[in-house]
Amino acid sequence: MKNLPWGFRFAGVHCGIKQDAAKEDLTLIVSDEPCVAAGVYTTNLIVAAPVQLDRQRTPMADARVLVANSGNANACTGERGARDSREMAQRAALACGAEERQSLVMSTGVIGHFLPMAKIAQGIESAVSRLGRDEAAWLSAARGITTTDRSPKIACRSLTLRGREVRVAGMAKGAGMIGPRMATMLGIIMTDVRLSVDNAQRSLQAAVDRSFNCISVEGHMSTNDTVLLLASGTAQAEAIDGDDLRQFQAALDDVCVELAKMIPDDGEGATHLITIDVRGCASREAAYRIAVSVANSALVKSGVAGNDPNWGRVVSAAGYAGVPFDPQKLQLKLNGTVVFREGGPASFDAKALSQCMRDNRETHLELEFGEGNDEVRYWTSDLTVDYVKFNSAYTT
Amino acid sequence: MKNLPWGFRFAGVHCGIKQDAAKEDLTLIVSDEPCVAAGVYTTNLIVAAPVQLDRQRTPMADARVLVANSGNANACTGERGARDSREMAQRAALACGAEERQSLVMSTGVIGHFLPMAKIAQGIESAVSRLGRDEAAWLSAARGITTTDRSPKIACRSLTLRGREVRVAGMAKGAGMIGPRMATMLGIIMTDVRLSVDNAQRSLQAAVDRSFNCISVEGHMSTNDTVLLLASGTAQAEAIDGDDLRQFQAALDDVCVELAKMIPDDGEGATHLITIDVRGCASREAAYRIAVSVANSALVKSGVAGNDPNWGRVVSAAGYAGVPFDPQKLQLKLNGTVVFREGGPASFDAKALSQCMRDNRETHLELEFGEGNDEVRYWTSDLTVDYVKFNSAYTT
Repeated sequence: MKNLPWGFRFAGVHCGIKQDAAKEDLTLIVSDEPCVAAGVYTTNLIVAAPVQLDRQRTPMADARVLVANSGNANACTGERGARDSREMAQRAALACGAEERQSLVMSTGVIGHFLPMAKIAQGIESAVSRLGRDEAAWLSAARGITTTDRSPKIACRSLTLRGREVRVAGMAKGAGMIGPRMATMLGIIMTDVRLSVDNAQRSLQAAVDRSFNCISVEGHMSTNDTVLLLASGTAQAEAIDGDDLRQFQAALDDVCVELAKMIPDDGEGATHLITIDVRGCASREAAYRIAVSVANSALVKSGVAGNDPNWGRVVSAAGYAGVPFDPQKLQLKLNGTVVFREGGPASFDAKALSQCMRDNRETHLELEFGEGNDEVRYWTSDLTVDYVKFNSAYTT
Repeated sequence: MKNLPWGFRFAGVHCGIKQDAAKEDLTLIVSDEPCVAAGVYTTNLIVAAPVQLDRQRTPMADARVLVANSGNANACTGERGARDSREMAQRAALACGAEERQSLVMSTGVIGHFLPMAKIAQGIESAVSRLGRDEAAWLSAARGITTTDRSPKIACRSLTLRGREVRVAGMAKGAGMIGPRMATMLGIIMTDVRLSVDNAQRSLQAAVDRSFNCISVEGHMSTNDTVLLLASGTAQAEAIDGDDLRQFQAALDDVCVELAKMIPDDGEGATHLITIDVRGCASREAAYRIAVSVANSALVKSGVAGNDPNWGRVVSAAGYAGVPFDPQKLQLKLNGTVVFREGGPASFDAKALSQCMRDNRETHLELEFGEGNDEVRYWTSDLTVDYVKFNSAYTT
């Protein structure tokens, strides 16, 4: 973790949005020089105020400040919500000597409540005074965006481009809408690679498509989902392209996948991380639809929670994905064991396979359709009693 | 319940598929004369053998026999499964003096196991000897198709057409795929109205579209879903049409809706029946997609289980349904109280509303979009700890 991207300073502070005074609830990230910023957002029609603001500003060539708060999503708060997000961005810009338009904003937490602007203003002042480039500052910033996460989610890579080491680091939070009244998956990726605005946006979209867009906890899309890429360019004089760009893309993909997998792994009450490989489809879209159908089946997920090698639930969930395929050609493997082929169950030792599921936190489903060459890898969590307990616990 | 449709005899017996000898697991329904039969089936690509057989035979003008078993779905059983379903239909036809092609078949229960054909053959013989027209026979037939249902699901209506009383009665079982390794929603509707084959099929499809196609428990579509309509015509000399057909349709809709609602109400572990009214949409398809999105949200469902008046989960689930709408025009009522309007929360007494949810088994969500005049009513169950417990309990 020593290898943080150059050109950025970080801070996470407690400003009183979360009740627990030991928990950071405001994060500030400042780029020393104007940096390239790209964003990918929720496709929910109901979008929170901070998403509306960032969507208008990215992609951009000269971002300076990102301010994020947890504990309040500033979603479904109408005109006043939009004003509050603008003011939050403006205060952060002013405090860091930037122009208002150079500032981006994120919020996560309760839906339908107005931001406590006095607390946020005070938090921004406090964060500015603590900005640092070290691991402690980085970790406090990563904690500042978490809500019901068990721990901050961070991932880093370095690679050598044109003989020089460059870095890609990211932080993320949440899992769809896992918590009671909580919302939002957030991701912030930083790099000191120099990117054109177009390539930054394209690279981020490509990385998100195979990482954050391939995870679910319960399939409930948030109003606040946001992944931002900030590229300072500090390590390089010129924007990269060609093979360098491909190498950077691979590192960016790695960071995003590592972060994305942590989200269902940390899903409320999860006892298994389920990896779903859908292969041999006629298109990526077809593979994706099947993966989503399997990943969002409450029966598949509660079966995995019970270490049940229940191929029937997986096969039937694939069957209602709306994608045509020949069931006779479908083969399903569970943790490496063939459990379904040629239209019927394979012979396997169900007790041994159940024990194998019990012994491993990861459950691996591999569906091979024999219809083409496109594939998707998708991750989800199992559905446990604790998930339901947590999400039905209501206290006014 | 005295008013059962004329022209049919019923029986339900135990033949040893279910372990509990007190539970019926085979149902036989015989039409005295050839009757019109229409069917609506699962759209899952993976379909069980009995569905494949019935799909080929209906709609038809001269059905005589319906044989159904519970405890084994005969799904994902390949060529042998298809052979077994044909043999089951054939044995029932022979035992009742009908031709093989006049016989229909249904199976529900465990996926991926071969039918115990000796038990089924014995069950058919036993059922033939017990066929009756009375309420006891009717109830035993209704119990013979149940699996994890708490009680048989039945509904009856009578109406007067051309001065004569006619009858529509139905039985149903299950709730999507609620049980461990269980599958199937089944419905059998009988009437002594005389219908043309075309009108029987059209009427059944219309009734199913607003009843059995508007319910979910966890949104997992079964491989065995089947609803059959058998019209003996015994009460009438000529096939009905025009206004008579419309009156019959209304009675058929009533019976189907009454049966359909019982399914999520009896959903595994359910503590609330949730009725979702989506109104003011530009098309029925748009309203339907929004209803399904809300009904299948684990967060909405676990929130209702916890008596949480959580409008944010409902509004955001509508937002990712893939249907364009103006959030400012959306109004959401929960048990009659406006909780969201004009893009933000309405002011309401959350404690009182939570108490109201606790005090009522039915929770009513009303979403009004102001985009058009189309609407859909949809029913689902809440998501409770008991649902997950039941569906993750694995015993080899």
